[in-house]
Amino acid sequence: MSDKKYYCGIDLGGTKIYAVIADENGQVIANYKQKTKKSDDKSDQTTNAAETIIGRLTDCYHKVIENAGIDEDDIQSVGIAVPSSVDITKGLLKYAPNLGLENVPIAKLMKEQTGKPIFVDNDVNMGIYGEYTLGAGKGYKHIYGLFVGTGIGGGYIVNGEVIRGVNYTAGEIGHMVMKIGGPQCNCGRQGCLEAIAGKIGIINYMKKKTADGKTKTMLDEVAPNWRQSVGSSALSKCYEAKDKVVRKAIKKSAETIGIACANLINAIGVEAIIIGGGVVEEMEDIFMPIITENAKKYSIAGGAEGVAILPAALGDNSVALGAAWFTALPENKKFLL
Amino acid sequence: MSDKKYYCGIDLGGTKIYAVIADENGQVIANYKQKTKKSDDKSDQTTNAAETIIGRLTDCYHKVIENAGIDEDDIQSVGIAVPSSVDITKGLLKYAPNLGLENVPIAKLMKEQTGKPIFVDNDVNMGIYGEYTLGAGKGYKHIYGLFVGTGIGGGYIVNGEVIRGVNYTAGEIGHMVMKIGGPQCNCGRQGCLEAIAGKIGIINYMKKKTADGKTKTMLDEVAPNWRQSVGSSALSKCYEAKDKVVRKAIKKSAETIGIACANLINAIGVEAIIIGGGVVEEMEDIFMPIITENAKKYSIAGGAEGVAILPAALGDNSVALGAAWFTALPENKKFLL
Repeated sequence: MSDKKYYCGIDLGGTKIYAVIADENGQVIANYKQKTKKSDDKSDQTTNAAETIIGRLTDCYHKVIENAGIDEDDIQSVGIAVPSSVDITKGLLKYAPNLGLENVPIAKLMKEQTGKPIFVDNDVNMGIYGEYTLGAGKGYKHIYGLFVGTGIGGGYIVNGEVIRGVNYTAGEIGHMVMKIGGPQCNCGRQGCLEAIAGKIGIINYMKKKTADGKTKTMLDEVAPNWRQSVGSSALSKCYEAKDKVVRKAIKKSAETIGIACANLINAIGVEAIIIGGGVVEEMEDIFMPIITENAKKYSIAGGAEGVAILPAALGDNSVALGAAWFTALPENKKFLL
Repeated sequence: MSDKKYYCGIDLGGTKIYAVIADENGQVIANYKQKTKKSDDKSDQTTNAAETIIGRLTDCYHKVIENAGIDEDDIQSVGIAVPSSVDITKGLLKYAPNLGLENVPIAKLMKEQTGKPIFVDNDVNMGIYGEYTLGAGKGYKHIYGLFVGTGIGGGYIVNGEVIRGVNYTAGEIGHMVMKIGGPQCNCGRQGCLEAIAGKIGIINYMKKKTADGKTKTMLDEVAPNWRQSVGSSALSKCYEAKDKVVRKAIKKSAETIGIACANLINAIGVEAIIIGGGVVEEMEDIFMPIITENAKKYSIAGGAEGVAILPAALGDNSVALGAAWFTALPENKKFLL
């Protein structure tokens, strides 16, 4: 045991688990990654998905400490971010269908495994908290974060406090209705932001545009399976090559995200909006100007003046680092379990 | 001068100025009303609209004290609510086009007139503050208020703090885009909440439905000028009489307000939403069930559970009483000018 203090953060994602160690300055000194699901998971799932996940989280915890070359005794606390709403008072993951998890007392189980104080929260909350404390949101107090991937997640901070909402479901801006009667969303409703502007929305728009069988897109060559799923880099490549279908889809996505930003500015008067997530990070130069232009255009007179609309700055680290750093700050001690 | 303490609140509206005196328990003990504009105002406006308004506010201040039968020395402070964004640190009304006012230092001018500590804020902020402290919002800490009239105004409170936004423009939920490419709004944009669900939106919808010249509505008899403006009571009467055009318009309005509530629940996880304003107050039994149903329907799973969606409780008093009571509470002393 040294006199140094370190904090572990673990980002439990649908495809990978990503862990970091942060030092006392919020610097990432090591990371470790493994797949969330493995090829032999079928048998696991029928037995106990929660047990399997806890095993992997614990494995990541040990491996990232090993990578950092530090003494486990110097780890002060562990922050865990999960793709679910979380009752943070109990460290209880409520519902993560694509991990097969429901009502899992992550904090209790990980405390048994590590012996450390634990904090568990929603991944996007921790991502925006990371950006707020160490990234693009530094210096702002009233911030909304919008993370654009397959869907669109959000996180909200007022006066330095993460607003989780009465049911721990705040931040679901992906399901803000932007177009009543608009495109079908996976949630069963219509016109949700992510059904227009998330990768789901982008794909659906392109499917519609090419449905006549005559309209072609470069994606047919670059990413032949694009109708099922498409990487952000393939979209970026086709956009740069001036593919009309991709250009229109991306512009529509960015415009709609911009209007969603205006909705936040108009309704709650945020100081800063941080935009992150794979899709935007890959095409930042394309997305950010269109988002900013539309956020201004759709805000009421004077409303958007001085409002910062910024790309996220922490990249892949934001969620895990946010979770680690949340546990490091004295004002959050009361939340550790 | 007695040992009793009283607080004056004045609601400066587009058509009337309404003043109240509140006692130490937040009870309204007297009120006074006069028209904002008088028939001889044409000459006033060309000379000095601000001077005229300050004269009338001062007049209301003296008259309501007279009505209360109290000693002016017992008035501790005056809260003034105006239909404009306000820089509360300066008591500066920024822009109220339909009163012909711009950049008027209301606090300074009213302090000269009354000698009392003054606080000036946006009217809807004070309305929701009134509901939060003394009305339907009592006991909740994270509240959005939505006031439906010709347009739709909003106010937002987090942890007891009125959130005014970086440009003092928070609460403009009337311009939340609910339907991209939807009905034209007076703000110049399309698909704003108030363009669908405010009285403006209701009228426009009915105009469209009757544009064929064949579709009839009872309003043609009840309120022949309905295409220009229509009272809430006329709408209510025709709704009760099962007029199809009015029924559809009101239902569409209520549904859309419900979806806007869901947008707030999803994005920011509010504990309570208070719905007020003339239109809803006149037809509370019609509006509230439809609003509640749609707020639940469009919220993500579990998001609306336990969220209170309540009609405003203070009626015409909410804004003036909210302004008076804001100045009465110790935690707001720092805001008085």
